[in-house]
Amino acid sequence: MPRSTRRRPGPTHPATEEIDLLDVLHALADPTRMTIVRVLRAEPERACGTFPVDVAPSTLSHHFKVLRESGVITQREEANRRFSALRTADLEHRFPGLLDTVLAAYARTGPGATPDAP
Amino acid sequence: MPRSTRRRPGPTHPATEEIDLLDVLHALADPTRMTIVRVLRAEPERACGTFPVDVAPSTLSHHFKVLRESGVITQREEANRRFSALRTADLEHRFPGLLDTVLAAYARTGPGATPDAP
Repeated sequence: MPRSTRRRPGPTHPATEEIDLLDVLHALADPTRMTIVRVLRAEPERACGTFPVDVAPSTLSHHFKVLRESGVITQREEANRRFSALRTADLEHRFPGLLDTVLAAYARTGPGATPDAP
Repeated sequence: MPRSTRRRPGPTHPATEEIDLLDVLHALADPTRMTIVRVLRAEPERACGTFPVDVAPSTLSHHFKVLRESGVITQREEANRRFSALRTADLEHRFPGLLDTVLAAYARTGPGATPDAP
């Protein structure tokens, strides 16, 4: 089989009903991972090397793995690029209101916060 | 000074405006600490040795420290006992809705979950 069409096994993801709250809280409790989640909240999908984070590739790879294995994001491969997307609907189904509450709290109090926003 | 009246310095706590969301998420991302928080949600204050958790005293002491230093609980000493209380109002002021959303999600999906509850 030519190299160009050989497939690595795709990344695995927990089923929605297997997503664990404590894993999700752990995944969100990091500034780099929170940045990734905030970016993905605003667009449907993004290639992994294009996030506005300043960490080494191996560190970034670890962060994506934590986010994926906790059920926060999905990842898929296409043309040698890996795309990530937030599991917004799955998280909302499993933990109603959690993601929006956390992101709103981070927007109000995190780096670059806009505390006067409603 | 007689030993019985000598005071250790009391535990320190972050001010409300210093409570960091990522620290709080990290503090909540552990089953023992989540159990402590759930117990304290239901009563104003509780002595540290009386929580229904099955961990070594040194481990439990670490968990209380993580909860206190993140701003999730306060602790005070009285008559050689240390009492803990949830910073419910401080957390609600800093991160509106967060604690209730997390605890509701854990009640629905965590150990002993009651998924049929509204």
